[in-house]
Amino acid sequence: MKTVGVLARPGLAEAGPVLRELTDWLLLRGLEACLDEGTSDLVDGGSGPGIKGLSSREVAARSDALVVLGGDGTLLAASHLVDRPVPVLGVNFGSLGFLTEVALSELFPALESVLDGTYRYEERRMLRASVDRGGEPVLVGDALNDVVITKAAHARIIELDVSIDGLFVSAFRADGLIVSSPTGSTAYNLAAGGPILHPALPAVVLTPICPHMLTNRPFVVGDGATVEISLRWGRDVEVHITLDGQPGFALAPGDRVAVTRSPRALRLVRAPGRDYYEVLRTKLKWGEASVRRS
Amino acid sequence: MKTVGVLARPGLAEAGPVLRELTDWLLLRGLEACLDEGTSDLVDGGSGPGIKGLSSREVAARSDALVVLGGDGTLLAASHLVDRPVPVLGVNFGSLGFLTEVALSELFPALESVLDGTYRYEERRMLRASVDRGGEPVLVGDALNDVVITKAAHARIIELDVSIDGLFVSAFRADGLIVSSPTGSTAYNLAAGGPILHPALPAVVLTPICPHMLTNRPFVVGDGATVEISLRWGRDVEVHITLDGQPGFALAPGDRVAVTRSPRALRLVRAPGRDYYEVLRTKLKWGEASVRRS
Amino acid sequence: MKTVGVLARPGLAEAGPVLRELTDWLLLRGLEACLDEGTSDLVDGGSGPGIKGLSSREVAARSDALVVLGGDGTLLAASHLVDRPVPVLGVNFGSLGFLTEVALSELFPALESVLDGTYRYEERRMLRASVDRGGEPVLVGDALNDVVITKAAHARIIELDVSIDGLFVSAFRADGLIVSSPTGSTAYNLAAGGPILHPALPAVVLTPICPHMLTNRPFVVGDGATVEISLRWGRDVEVHITLDGQPGFALAPGDRVAVTRSPRALRLVRAPGRDYYEVLRTKLKWGEASVRRS
Amino acid sequence: MKTVGVLARPGLAEAGPVLRELTDWLLLRGLEACLDEGTSDLVDGGSGPGIKGLSSREVAARSDALVVLGGDGTLLAASHLVDRPVPVLGVNFGSLGFLTEVALSELFPALESVLDGTYRYEERRMLRASVDRGGEPVLVGDALNDVVITKAAHARIIELDVSIDGLFVSAFRADGLIVSSPTGSTAYNLAAGGPILHPALPAVVLTPICPHMLTNRPFVVGDGATVEISLRWGRDVEVHITLDGQPGFALAPGDRVAVTRSPRALRLVRAPGRDYYEVLRTKLKWGEASVRRS
Repeated sequence: MKTVGVLARPGLAEAGPVLRELTDWLLLRGLEACLDEGTSDLVDGGSGPGIKGLSSREVAARSDALVVLGGDGTLLAASHLVDRPVPVLGVNFGSLGFLTEVALSELFPALESVLDGTYRYEERRMLRASVDRGGEPVLVGDALNDVVITKAAHARIIELDVSIDGLFVSAFRADGLIVSSPTGSTAYNLAAGGPILHPALPAVVLTPICPHMLTNRPFVVGDGATVEISLRWGRDVEVHITLDGQPGFALAPGDRVAVTRSPRALRLVRAPGRDYYEVLRTKLKWGEASVRRS
Repeated sequence: MKTVGVLARPGLAEAGPVLRELTDWLLLRGLEACLDEGTSDLVDGGSGPGIKGLSSREVAARSDALVVLGGDGTLLAASHLVDRPVPVLGVNFGSLGFLTEVALSELFPALESVLDGTYRYEERRMLRASVDRGGEPVLVGDALNDVVITKAAHARIIELDVSIDGLFVSAFRADGLIVSSPTGSTAYNLAAGGPILHPALPAVVLTPICPHMLTNRPFVVGDGATVEISLRWGRDVEVHITLDGQPGFALAPGDRVAVTRSPRALRLVRAPGRDYYEVLRTKLKWGEASVRRS
Repeated sequence: MKTVGVLARPGLAEAGPVLRELTDWLLLRGLEACLDEGTSDLVDGGSGPGIKGLSSREVAARSDALVVLGGDGTLLAASHLVDRPVPVLGVNFGSLGFLTEVALSELFPALESVLDGTYRYEERRMLRASVDRGGEPVLVGDALNDVVITKAAHARIIELDVSIDGLFVSAFRADGLIVSSPTGSTAYNLAAGGPILHPALPAVVLTPICPHMLTNRPFVVGDGATVEISLRWGRDVEVHITLDGQPGFALAPGDRVAVTRSPRALRLVRAPGRDYYEVLRTKLKWGEASVRRS
Repeated sequence: MKTVGVLARPGLAEAGPVLRELTDWLLLRGLEACLDEGTSDLVDGGSGPGIKGLSSREVAARSDALVVLGGDGTLLAASHLVDRPVPVLGVNFGSLGFLTEVALSELFPALESVLDGTYRYEERRMLRASVDRGGEPVLVGDALNDVVITKAAHARIIELDVSIDGLFVSAFRADGLIVSSPTGSTAYNLAAGGPILHPALPAVVLTPICPHMLTNRPFVVGDGATVEISLRWGRDVEVHITLDGQPGFALAPGDRVAVTRSPRALRLVRAPGRDYYEVLRTKLKWGEASVRRS
C-alpha cells in the first residue's frame, strides 16, 4: 500500500483539522496522501500538502485505499469513482451513516487496521443499468443504491412492462419503479414501502412507486437475474432513469432498460466492534417506542 | 327543467346510438338537448340534433341537468365546468366507475327520476387551491379529487412545511404531498397508501408520497381547515402543483399554497338501488380472496 | 368547584412529593383533595391526607375536576370512570403523552386555569360497543381509543361481515378489525396501518388487521354511523372483543357487535401553549430523518 | 418408480371420478396406486382399489411420487408428510393455487412427465423451528410457509428479542412475528405487509405483525442464517408458535425459538408451460386495475 486517497464533502470546513492530522499521520508512515482539489482546499486555506489539482476521479484511480469524510451522500458519490476493489473507509461528521459508520474518533484505529490488512469489510454489490435505444446502448452506468425510473411531475402515471430473465412479470401502472440493491434498500426503497435487505443477500428488490394496483407489492429476486423494463408510451409522458439519485437521463419511446448485477462492488471497511444491526437500530431509531397501545 | 346537457368522452364512437336515443327521448318530453361539438359529432356522423358549435363549458353553463357518458375521467373533467348545483348523471361505458355508477341500461330510469325530482344524489364537496406569489394569487382552481404537489422526475426530494389553521404541523421530506377530498380518496391517495374516506365525511386527507420519515402517515382533518403548504427550496428543485391530474402548474421559490373547501360541490346522481359500498366492493374487488393463508 | 380528585398510576413512588404538594395546594385554596386508596398510599407512607379507603371509581364520582398522574395508560383507565363532563388533567411522569401532555412543571399553572375556568380543553368523543346475543345485550361498554375484535393466537383467521347504517360493506377475512376513535388513531390503529385522525374530527376509522384481501384498506366514516360486525363461524374459532385494551370478552357464534358514538366524552385539559401537532411531532419523532435518500 | 401416492382433500367428493381414472391409468402402466383411507373412500363409495386403511403419512412414506388433489392447504399438509425428495404434483380443483398450479386437465400430461423423468420442478426449501426450554428441545418441526409467533386475542402486545447468527437485531413490541420462507411470502407475510420473495431465493423474511415501532419493517436475510427469538415476559401474556397454520404450541417464559433452514425441501412439480409469474399475476389479479387516477 503506497497511496491513500482522501475525499471530503465539498465545503466541509470542519474537516480541515482532521485532514491536516490525517495527512501528517500518513506521511509519518511513509505513505502518500492524495487529496482532490476540493479536499485540499479545506486544509490550511488551500496551502495543504499533496499533489495539486487532482479531480476526485484521479484521486480514486491512484489510491490503494480511500478515506471518505462526510456523510452517506459523499460516500455514494465516491463509490462511483472506484473501479477496483480497494478498501473504502467512510467517516461520518455528526451522525452515524448507513455507509459512513466510522466515527471521527475511530478514524485512526480503523485506518491502522486497513494498513496492516486486519480490517473487516463488506463487499457491497452494485447494479448495472443499461438503456437500449434501437439496438444501441445509449446509457450504461452503475449504482450502489438504486436504479429508479420515474415520471415527470406533471405526468399522470407511467406504464412499465417488467420481465425477469426473459419471463414477463407484469405491467405496472405507477409513478415509477425502483430497482434497489441491498445497500439501497434502506434508502428510497424504504420510503416507497419496500423491505430491508441484509447487505450480504445476493438479491435485488423491485418496488413500485404508488402503484395503481394495490396488489403490486415489492418483489425480491436473486441478483443474478436480468430485470428488463420497457415503457408503454402515452401522449405527453416524460420519464427519467436515475442512478443513485444523480441527475437523470430522459428515456425515449421504445427504450429498453436492463438492470443486472455489476461486475463492480464496493469494498466497504467496517468500523471495529460495530455490526450492521447496530447501525440499523440507530438509524431507524428502533427501541424508541412511538405508538402508544392501549 | 328546460335544458339537459350531454357530454360524451371525446371519440366515444359507441355512444352514437344512445346519444340519438337520448336526444329523441328528451325532445319527446319537451326538453332541449344540449350537446357540445365533440358529442354532437358522435351522432349520425355529426348531423345530429341540437345547437351547433358549443363548447363543453357552454353546454354546462346552459343546462339544468347534465348527462355525462364515458368514465370517471370524463366526469371529472365535467365537474370542472359546472358551477351551480345542477344534477350530474354519470353513465359508464363498460365497467362501473366510482363517479359513473349508472349503467347504460339504467340511464333512462335514472334520468326519469332526475326530471321528476325524485332522484337521490350526493353533494361531493370540492377543494379549492390557491397559490400565493409575493402577495398575489397566481393560481386559483377547484378539484373534485385532489390537489397534488410533486417533484420533477430528476429531482431528488422536496421539503414542504405544512400548517393547518395557522398551526405548524411538520416539515415533510418526500416525493410530494396529496391533499385529497373523500371523493379523491379512492384515487391517487389510495395508491400512495392513504385511507378511504366515506364521500359524505366533511374531511380531507393529507398523504405524503414516499416520505423520508417512516412515521409521516396519512392525516385526516376536517374540511373546514385551511391547509397551507410552503416549499423549502434547494438547488435544481422543480415542483408542480396539479389539480385533478390536469396539466400542472410550476411553483416558484417562495410560493405558498393554500387548500380549503371550495364553495362548489358536485351534485352527483346516484344509480337507483346502488349504494357506495357496492361500488367500493366492485371496484376494489373485495370478496375475491387474493392472499392464501396457511 | 369543591372537590378535586387525584389518581396516580399504581405504585408510582416518585409521585409522592408532588401529591403532598398538590394536596397542600388544594387545601390552601379551600378545596377538598380526594385521593383513591392506591394514590393515598403513595403519600408519606400512607399517612397522607384525605378520606380513606375510596376506590378510583368513587373518587371520579365525587370530583368536580380530576388530576391524573402517570402516563397515557393511567389516563385511559381514568376515562372509563368519569361519566360527567368534568375537566381531566393528565400529567406525565417522564415523556410527553398523547393524552398526558401536561408536564409536571406545568401542573400548577394548568390547575390554576382549571379552577378559574380559563382552561382550554378538547372534548374527546368515546365509542360505545354493545354485543347482542340472541336479542339480549351481553356486553355494553365505552372506549376512548378503540374497540378491537381479534382471533386467538392459535386460530388461523376470522371472517367478519361489516355493515354501516344497515348497508353491507364487506366480508373481511383477517386477524381482526379495529374500530378506532380519533383519539385511538395514534394507538393500535397506527400499528395496523391506519391513518391519523385529528382529535376533533367527528369520525371513526375501521382498520382491518392483516387482511387477506390486499385491497381491504382503512376506512374512515362519520361517527354518527352505526358500525355492525357479525362473525361468520368456522370450527375452532376463538374470538375476543376488547375495549381500550382491557381484558377481552369472548364472543360466541351468532353474536352481533354494534359500535356507535357514546353519549360520553372526555373533557381533556390542554397544556397551556401546547398544540396537538406539537404532541404529534414529538411522539412520532417527525423532524428526525430516518431514511437516507441517495 | 413403482408406487404413486394419491392424497385428496378430505371430503372432496368431486375428486371421485378422477381418482377412479387416475388409479386405472397408473395400473395400466404397471404402477401401484397408493391411497390413504380418506382418499380411497371418495372412490366408488369406498369400494375403490388399493391397499386399505393407510394413513396419509404411510402413503407418503411408501410412494415414489405423490399426487395431491385439492388446494394449497391440502398440499401444505402433504408437504409435512414427505421427508424424501420425491416429486409432488399439486392439482387444483377450481382456481389456480400458488402450490397447486396443475389444472385437472393437465394432470395426465404432467404425470406422464413425472414418470418419464422429464418433469420440471422447484425445490421449495422448508424452515425448521425448534423451541428450547431450559436446555431441552420441547418442539422441533418443519414449515413450508412460515413460523409464526403471536399473542392471544386478549393479550395487549408481546415483546420479542430477535438475534440473527448471534447478533442482536432488535426488540420488537408487536402482535407477533412471522418468519416466512419464499414459498410462504405470498401467504400470511403478504397480509402483514411483507414483500414477495422469488421461490428460488435462498432467503427468509422476518415480518413483524402490527409493530409498535413504525420503523420496524420487514427484513430479508439469507436462509443460511439462524434466527433466534426470545420472549420478554409480562403478566398475563399468552403466546403461541404456529407452523404453517397448524394448531399452535403454547410458549412458556424463558423459551427460546430458533428458526433455520430445514434439511428438507419440497420437490414441487411445475405445470408444463406455466411459470411463477403467471401464477403470481393470476392470484394477485395483477393487470386488473383497481385504483382510479385522475
